[in-house]
Amino acid sequence: MTDTNKQTLINRRHKVLGQHSPLFYHEPLNLVRGENVWVYDENGKRYLDVYNNVPHVGHCHPHVVEALTRQACTLNTHTRYLHENVIQYAERLTSTFDTSLSTAMFTCTGSEANELALRMARHCTGGSGIIVTDFAYHGNTEAVAELGTAFMAEAKSTRRVRSVSIPDSYRSPEGLHGEALGEAYANEVQDAIEAFADEGIKFAGLLICPDFANEGLLNVPPGYLEKAVAHVHRAGGLFIADEVQAGFGRSGRHMWAHQGYDITPDIVTLGKPMGNGHPVAGVVARAELTDTFGGSSMYFNTFGGNPVSCAVGMAVLDVLERESLLKNAQDTGAYVASGLRALQAKYDLIGEIRDLGLFFAMELVTDRSSKKPAPDACDKVVNTLRQQGVLISKIGRHDSILKMRPPMSFQREHADLLLSTLDDALALAQTQI
Amino acid sequence: MTDTNKQTLINRRHKVLGQHSPLFYHEPLNLVRGENVWVYDENGKRYLDVYNNVPHVGHCHPHVVEALTRQACTLNTHTRYLHENVIQYAERLTSTFDTSLSTAMFTCTGSEANELALRMARHCTGGSGIIVTDFAYHGNTEAVAELGTAFMAEAKSTRRVRSVSIPDSYRSPEGLHGEALGEAYANEVQDAIEAFADEGIKFAGLLICPDFANEGLLNVPPGYLEKAVAHVHRAGGLFIADEVQAGFGRSGRHMWAHQGYDITPDIVTLGKPMGNGHPVAGVVARAELTDTFGGSSMYFNTFGGNPVSCAVGMAVLDVLERESLLKNAQDTGAYVASGLRALQAKYDLIGEIRDLGLFFAMELVTDRSSKKPAPDACDKVVNTLRQQGVLISKIGRHDSILKMRPPMSFQREHADLLLSTLDDALALAQTQI
Repeated sequence: MTDTNKQTLINRRHKVLGQHSPLFYHEPLNLVRGENVWVYDENGKRYLDVYNNVPHVGHCHPHVVEALTRQACTLNTHTRYLHENVIQYAERLTSTFDTSLSTAMFTCTGSEANELALRMARHCTGGSGIIVTDFAYHGNTEAVAELGTAFMAEAKSTRRVRSVSIPDSYRSPEGLHGEALGEAYANEVQDAIEAFADEGIKFAGLLICPDFANEGLLNVPPGYLEKAVAHVHRAGGLFIADEVQAGFGRSGRHMWAHQGYDITPDIVTLGKPMGNGHPVAGVVARAELTDTFGGSSMYFNTFGGNPVSCAVGMAVLDVLERESLLKNAQDTGAYVASGLRALQAKYDLIGEIRDLGLFFAMELVTDRSSKKPAPDACDKVVNTLRQQGVLISKIGRHDSILKMRPPMSFQREHADLLLSTLDDALALAQTQI
Repeated sequence: MTDTNKQTLINRRHKVLGQHSPLFYHEPLNLVRGENVWVYDENGKRYLDVYNNVPHVGHCHPHVVEALTRQACTLNTHTRYLHENVIQYAERLTSTFDTSLSTAMFTCTGSEANELALRMARHCTGGSGIIVTDFAYHGNTEAVAELGTAFMAEAKSTRRVRSVSIPDSYRSPEGLHGEALGEAYANEVQDAIEAFADEGIKFAGLLICPDFANEGLLNVPPGYLEKAVAHVHRAGGLFIADEVQAGFGRSGRHMWAHQGYDITPDIVTLGKPMGNGHPVAGVVARAELTDTFGGSSMYFNTFGGNPVSCAVGMAVLDVLERESLLKNAQDTGAYVASGLRALQAKYDLIGEIRDLGLFFAMELVTDRSSKKPAPDACDKVVNTLRQQGVLISKIGRHDSILKMRPPMSFQREHADLLLSTLDDALALAQTQI
């Protein structure tokens, strides 16, 4: 495709999808094919995908496509008829959780899952106040946008959402570290609960991603989440773990990010990687909450839990098991992390490396003592990598954190390509600070 | 499957999906296969599907399944990369609307589409007040549940939603009919606008299904919608047409239900039949609204508008054209309607028949002069038909309206089976009033 043809495509897009429909990269990519960790543009150039966690077990995985096709040829309908798939999938999913989390409800998107979790939490507690972090994003519907301290207009005008500092060990208040830091951050949750009470707003719960993925995959100070959740439960609130990004074994150590802490959520929301690209998401909760909510709110989701979506969801679980992808996330993840730390020794630009299985964050700073964020360098690295055939993105309050989160089938050979390309891009960015 | 086995399936379902997950029919159906207008249970018994509009062009249509499979094998990603499919699908879709409705945004469900429409309308008008009918259902998220005068707890507690009487010609205020009735109903919209103003709530818009599908597929009095929309626009509000049920040519006469009136909506929401079961939905709006909203609210839907969903959406449009299904909806629809009217001549139980293409409503009453609703007879008919192998459902404030809405490929031979089975079921129900 010539530049003119690509510009024509962009112009057509602006006209029919609106001028502001977001696109990645200074020079947008036109992708036409994907396979495992690779995607290809219209000229046949290949790109290593180190960003997308939606194709969780690899782009176009044949086992998942086969399950999709087989069920789509057979029957696709809704959950007001009986069907083995939705029951079996819910049984398989809930079996990966603490036994108290024994029921599942299905939606199509992570936003819908967080919507449903909020409706359940507000209904079951009789409260409305929700606590989130001050750099949160949980989805795009109105009630969920209210939680979006990171991006959303709706967040500014609501009184029923309060935010607490992100529990960041890297950019923490001076003089605090370890358990004392965890306690200080957790106390903010207690303060927010009391502030709701002062305003006469009954507290409903805390909703966070246990890996703080959107906040920059934080090194969470020890004891933070356990203490925060204890405050929540003592006040009669519920803890909702948003596992839309972090779940399905991304950390390699656990199937669910919250299982890395000594807590049990009341409600867990699932999404993105669940169907390897197929729109399926859901809520796993204590039976008591599901039944209390279900008994008075007729919840029905036309496409949620349909036989095709559940077949796809089960195929993703099959592949995670058969290909030992959690173990791979640990092994390859450790290999990548070690390579990233070697780069950190080489480039002052790298303030901190954080990793959890196959999820990596790299904070770029103009100098390590002031920790001044380096968004320009971050932007430079992301776009240089794209030109060199490696896809990553950036996040964080200052857009200064490189975000790397490849499909779970990522291998050492792919890691080597990522690391060498990143080496070159950091060298280039370092000269330009 | 034995009764014991089915009860085991139901018990497993209650345990893992919750006790209140809704199921159709006194004796729930376990469906395992579908083809065109037929679905089959686990014993091979076939049922004529006269209820489901999601499999719009027929269950498991090969052209749609093929498009799904082909794209799922090739690439499934999101709209932050360029892709021809989403652009082409948006172009094909918007070409079926008035030229002013030139932009599309994609979501996965009708609830998400109505959410997005509400966020756009509220953002662009700076208002929050929304008018709906007093028997509305527009979806399951919190902000959309607030509109759900029919079912939702959230609707009771909000001040930013007001409802008007459903514009019903059958159960209308005494002495009014024709244009005078339309004007009387439309004046309620003006009254609601003024009531918002009195309460200091800025008006944002009117959101309704132009066919009033959920309200019982009303015979709308002449001039009603035109007058109501004029009131809305004069007050600076937007008219949102919810075409999630009514769209994609269901009426046979038009692609969109609002095209049956002399109005142009500002925003239209699409869903259910759009992907023949695949979770795809969307919003079509004036470019000015899309750009104003998009410019300040970063809207992104991870699965919305993905290449697979758009391939499926285009395949549905292909089949509608190739198999002339709008014409079929007119022809077969007229044949069914004529058969239903013959039944009305035979059974006093039938108060009114309403039809629009392949969408039919039949109000059952205990006697025609008092128009007293007959919910028991309605329930009896629905469940008798299910036992006899014909699937329909019921709606309306009193659960007394039979709802029939088969796939668009429904033929005269299917109509004959529906009509004869309905004849028997009505005979049985009539004896039991």
